[in-house]
Amino acid sequence: MMKDRLLNLIALFVVMSVSPFAAQEKKAFTLDDVIPGGSNYYALSPKGLPGLQWWGDVCVTADVEKVVARKAAAEETLFTLEAVNKALPEGCRPLHTLMDARFPWADRQVAVLPQGGQWIWFDFGQQQVVQSVRLDERAACLDFCPANGRMAYTIGSRLCITAEDGSEIAVSPAGKENEDTQDLVYGQAVHRNEFGIDKGTFWSPKGRCLAFYRMDQTEVTAYPQVNTSGRVAVPEPDKYPMAGMTSHRVSVGLYDLHTGQTVYLKTGDATDRYFTNISWSPDERSVYVIELNRDQNHARLVRYNAVSGEPEAVLYEEKHPCYVEPQHPLRFLPWDETKFVYQSQRDGFNHLYLFDTKAAPVREGWQTLAGTGSSYCEHVGVRQLTAGDWLVQEVLGFRADKREMIIGTTEISPLQTNVFALDTRTLKRRLLGEKDGMHRARLSQSGKFLIDHFTSAAVPRVIRLLPTDGKQGTVLLEADDPLCEQYELPDITVGTLKAADGKTDLYYRLVKPVGFDPARKYPAIVYVYGGPHAQLITNTRFYGARGWDLYMAQKGYVMLTVDSRGSDNRGLCFENCTFRRLGTEEMKDQIKGVEWLQSLPYVDKDRIGVHGWSFGGFMTTNLMLTYNDVFKVGVAGGPVIDWQFYEVMYGERYMDTPQANPDGYREANLRLKAGRLKGRLEIIIGGEDPVCVPQHSYSFLRACIDAGTHPDFFVYPEAGHNMVGRDRVHLHEHITRYFEDHLK
Amino acid sequence: MMKDRLLNLIALFVVMSVSPFAAQEKKAFTLDDVIPGGSNYYALSPKGLPGLQWWGDVCVTADVEKVVARKAAAEETLFTLEAVNKALPEGCRPLHTLMDARFPWADRQVAVLPQGGQWIWFDFGQQQVVQSVRLDERAACLDFCPANGRMAYTIGSRLCITAEDGSEIAVSPAGKENEDTQDLVYGQAVHRNEFGIDKGTFWSPKGRCLAFYRMDQTEVTAYPQVNTSGRVAVPEPDKYPMAGMTSHRVSVGLYDLHTGQTVYLKTGDATDRYFTNISWSPDERSVYVIELNRDQNHARLVRYNAVSGEPEAVLYEEKHPCYVEPQHPLRFLPWDETKFVYQSQRDGFNHLYLFDTKAAPVREGWQTLAGTGSSYCEHVGVRQLTAGDWLVQEVLGFRADKREMIIGTTEISPLQTNVFALDTRTLKRRLLGEKDGMHRARLSQSGKFLIDHFTSAAVPRVIRLLPTDGKQGTVLLEADDPLCEQYELPDITVGTLKAADGKTDLYYRLVKPVGFDPARKYPAIVYVYGGPHAQLITNTRFYGARGWDLYMAQKGYVMLTVDSRGSDNRGLCFENCTFRRLGTEEMKDQIKGVEWLQSLPYVDKDRIGVHGWSFGGFMTTNLMLTYNDVFKVGVAGGPVIDWQFYEVMYGERYMDTPQANPDGYREANLRLKAGRLKGRLEIIIGGEDPVCVPQHSYSFLRACIDAGTHPDFFVYPEAGHNMVGRDRVHLHEHITRYFEDHLK
Repeated sequence: MMKDRLLNLIALFVVMSVSPFAAQEKKAFTLDDVIPGGSNYYALSPKGLPGLQWWGDVCVTADVEKVVARKAAAEETLFTLEAVNKALPEGCRPLHTLMDARFPWADRQVAVLPQGGQWIWFDFGQQQVVQSVRLDERAACLDFCPANGRMAYTIGSRLCITAEDGSEIAVSPAGKENEDTQDLVYGQAVHRNEFGIDKGTFWSPKGRCLAFYRMDQTEVTAYPQVNTSGRVAVPEPDKYPMAGMTSHRVSVGLYDLHTGQTVYLKTGDATDRYFTNISWSPDERSVYVIELNRDQNHARLVRYNAVSGEPEAVLYEEKHPCYVEPQHPLRFLPWDETKFVYQSQRDGFNHLYLFDTKAAPVREGWQTLAGTGSSYCEHVGVRQLTAGDWLVQEVLGFRADKREMIIGTTEISPLQTNVFALDTRTLKRRLLGEKDGMHRARLSQSGKFLIDHFTSAAVPRVIRLLPTDGKQGTVLLEADDPLCEQYELPDITVGTLKAADGKTDLYYRLVKPVGFDPARKYPAIVYVYGGPHAQLITNTRFYGARGWDLYMAQKGYVMLTVDSRGSDNRGLCFENCTFRRLGTEEMKDQIKGVEWLQSLPYVDKDRIGVHGWSFGGFMTTNLMLTYNDVFKVGVAGGPVIDWQFYEVMYGERYMDTPQANPDGYREANLRLKAGRLKGRLEIIIGGEDPVCVPQHSYSFLRACIDAGTHPDFFVYPEAGHNMVGRDRVHLHEHITRYFEDHLK
Repeated sequence: MMKDRLLNLIALFVVMSVSPFAAQEKKAFTLDDVIPGGSNYYALSPKGLPGLQWWGDVCVTADVEKVVARKAAAEETLFTLEAVNKALPEGCRPLHTLMDARFPWADRQVAVLPQGGQWIWFDFGQQQVVQSVRLDERAACLDFCPANGRMAYTIGSRLCITAEDGSEIAVSPAGKENEDTQDLVYGQAVHRNEFGIDKGTFWSPKGRCLAFYRMDQTEVTAYPQVNTSGRVAVPEPDKYPMAGMTSHRVSVGLYDLHTGQTVYLKTGDATDRYFTNISWSPDERSVYVIELNRDQNHARLVRYNAVSGEPEAVLYEEKHPCYVEPQHPLRFLPWDETKFVYQSQRDGFNHLYLFDTKAAPVREGWQTLAGTGSSYCEHVGVRQLTAGDWLVQEVLGFRADKREMIIGTTEISPLQTNVFALDTRTLKRRLLGEKDGMHRARLSQSGKFLIDHFTSAAVPRVIRLLPTDGKQGTVLLEADDPLCEQYELPDITVGTLKAADGKTDLYYRLVKPVGFDPARKYPAIVYVYGGPHAQLITNTRFYGARGWDLYMAQKGYVMLTVDSRGSDNRGLCFENCTFRRLGTEEMKDQIKGVEWLQSLPYVDKDRIGVHGWSFGGFMTTNLMLTYNDVFKVGVAGGPVIDWQFYEVMYGERYMDTPQANPDGYREANLRLKAGRLKGRLEIIIGGEDPVCVPQHSYSFLRACIDAGTHPDFFVYPEAGHNMVGRDRVHLHEHITRYFEDHLK
């Protein structure tokens, strides 16, 4: 069934392929025009509405000079920058923009206006400042609680909250020595942001309590990063637990504003365990944590008493021979606080499950799901809300009056996110907005309205105000694509080809050279990622092709990308077939793409290049070494070279530990293939890459030198895992030159 | 006068130019054949006699299996490896070779045989082991005292000596914590090996006392080197005082073996002072130190009482507006312990001065030497022993019975070292050995014999046993040049051209392509160094051209090297004209060379490349940026980019401090020229370069990225300032490829 739908879509895409300007002569665009960070990039991107947001059910635009509410078809200015600055009390610094304004209270005419460490509460009914807070200028990880008006924030490794008068309350032990240490870190994201963790503080719904992470890294090795930008180079050691080595220990604290006391969840020994997706019960009495063993193959949903910190119940367990990867906190039903929605890919795709904390489980004991390898054990009543060979990507919220959930899914196409209203009683789904394209949406307070941000290969950008009852919406913005208007762009097609397993359909994207001449023989470059949690081909502007792909097409290259097995949005089995052998299956799929590419009459099969970053750098290097007769030139950015140098959480999920999986680590260790290098391979890294630490690439260079092979190398000093701003333009000039030098 | 001599020589050289095999077809040599570290390098180098040495006046050859003495024309085996191993006492490890045998006592039939930390004293008269010592395996900086049979050595930062029974006596404070610190270092070379310092311990002539350096680096910034070769990258901080910053403080200790007490020389505050060329008086009662201020423009020769450590007298002072650079310890006359020979370049060339400690100075007060800028003040009687526009390079020793000194000088040619006997009474000099070529010689105990190691552009290698009375010597070895025999080598000529000052003659070396065809247009590469203390063109094998020059000539490049002003062996003014503006004058001279190169009909003037390492890397980068229309391709190894990142001793000698010479530092700061890069420039460094720390190159890459220019880069992980062994072959493959990619 899936296959048919895919093929239908392909036909659609091919017809829709982006080629607005046939053969007419236009000037050439530059990297500055198409690379983020380029001087002309934003001018040539479709316009957006950056300050657009919800104030309750009112759609508001926060601009530099003023904040405007859209009511019905009319616009109403709520307040101006001038008015705010006039109303500022003494000692407050004037604001330069209102674009960061936030409207946390649907029922209050109050905006929160942050600027640097200064936070202003502006009552735009009264046109006066009702509160102002000046935080320590080092304050980071700010987390504002609408329920109590307090702010949680970190200073170095410490955690603080604002008192009622705006002064500082220390949640973690105070003192300079506790700020600078990396040994004990409070209030920050832990587990290296895996498992959906993106912050370290969690306010209780009514604002009585702050849950926070505390991470003990005392026994974690520090990676010796060095900053060479100053008068003297300085060490910048960075705690980085490597696969198979001693990791950090995390605990979860609950700070009670009323008592000023902290209770830690009594999780037992935290060694080699992950505590993720912290969720408060609506009544603030319980904290739910999904707990995972270091092997990451057994998840448990545990409820703790928020007063005593004692565990109260295990509600759910899930296992998988590869890995279980809980990534989403619980979502309690607004109309029934005894029920929440849990996300799991146990049936092969990420779907929604309604947990009834008061109901007995349907089936006792461990259940196995044929075909997926998953097994699970429900300790309360659970009802599956969605199912099918597509996946739920996000829960936008609820429309309580209709008992609906508003969700984003791949149901229409794995290349898309579409928004649906899911009736939690009938389980029927209703599409909201266009069928085509990629939708990013934000739901209003009541769930009655969406701001629907929509883009596809055919539509540069449309932003609509959309009622969730299915009525016609209002177009807020319909943007042109200045790049398409001003320049001749390449023809881009998307289709599928068979994976190396002979059955799975893989999406590819083919970008033909600008001014394509079928009689010519073009060099071709594969742009690759291939790792989990990423998908390069989507039904968005240029089908997700990046500016550099367009640029290279303009320079006369055919650009191919294949989302191989292991990549995102295709379900559990599609992803975990790479388990313990990262790179191997992915490369086979990429080679399928290359074989197809080489079969095209206009592709010079002896001039095939490959480029990728991070996991894509790993793939690029691996392809250059493993299939060294196929690829002539490669540029690998920030590559993984040896998974034992990668961090514990991501690394061991897919590879287990080096001790447990020596063969897998050996097979994926590119240093052991250093002697196979035949073509031209350039490795590029950020000098202080904290993700793929420089040791990967340096140890690879050393291996090549010892093996007598000759990679090239470049480093962006002081840069991290990715180059940003002007560096990013420079990087792509550099990459381009390498292909021009050796593949052209 | 000098000029005439030079021109005569040039004529000679041109005639002698190395081109033994005209146009006949031979196979091509590889980098493995001609680069040190290459698998075939030694097989294709002229043979030597590595174990050749003096035992008193007996010439001895220490081989793997046996030690042979050459007496008259006959050879006599003194002992064999087998005999030594048979004689070893229990607990001693068998020796694998006798090549490291030393014969410290002219009057005893005893060899000292080191192997690892084990030292064997072998009496080859009795064929028995008379002593054995097993040092800590971390022992380094070993310094054996023939007078007392003791060994001084370091363990980490500590200093020890062997007791009579071979056990360890701690000279510096004992304890593990004192071993691992870089803060206080005992018994090692100080001042970063400048001022001729190559060790940190100095036995008194009769063995009663050990003088040693103690270096306090507490306030010196550590450069954060990183080693990426292990399971986890580890920091390897290295104390590195940068120009203008706080430097180390050195003191000189005297450890008395009889009392077990250490006295430190009472030098006063050691801040910003250098203590160099430690010399014992023959009677052990005094220690002489040459003391230099941080500006390095005022040297003082001071005598200290070896018992009390009190200063006794200042014997000599010397100043120069640029710098004074004392590099040689005193040499006391064997026949008169009240007199010693001091070396100074105060008259413009390094010459010898006989100091009479008992005589009054010839002239009181400060004297100025017109033309050189030098001034000096003699506090004792001084007589100049040598003079002329050539320089003394080394004092080999004395022939006491004739009151002669045996010295090596550039008198015959600045491209040569020839050995002379200097009569200290008449000041007449007598040439020993061939007039042609470069002579490295070792003098026997009495001074009656030389081992004269001789090579020139025409002579691969001759080693002679040479009486110093002028009689005919014995040829020990006359080596062929296997490279010349087996391969067609390029034509090499040496000549002079005028420096940019319009008057100074500079030597150049031109290597023409193998199989030269005057009708063709060849690309050309300048191989450059240009800094002080180095000379690239000498009358040695291939006139000093390195294997890579030959290899590139074989590949069809013209190779040019010019020893520009600032380089070695041409005297004070030739060197110090670059003072405070390193690079500027040197580049002008290099451009003179390039202009000449471009005037040659067979050179393609649009394809000029440049390559150099260290100071030559600085020159290469600077030339690529400054003369960016001249050079198309450059490869700069381990370059200085900004002299403020270079160390205090060398850096400030030539550049003063950044605070005192901001304009000079700005002019030489290549980061400020990063935007001028037009051609292709590759920077190559050792990942842990302790000399030109990686910060130089990383900060340059950053400057280029920010300026939007595009250098290339490569790093040899874990390597130091130079690549050695197999790395060196790989390096030259890499450099070659870069020129082949972009200049061919």
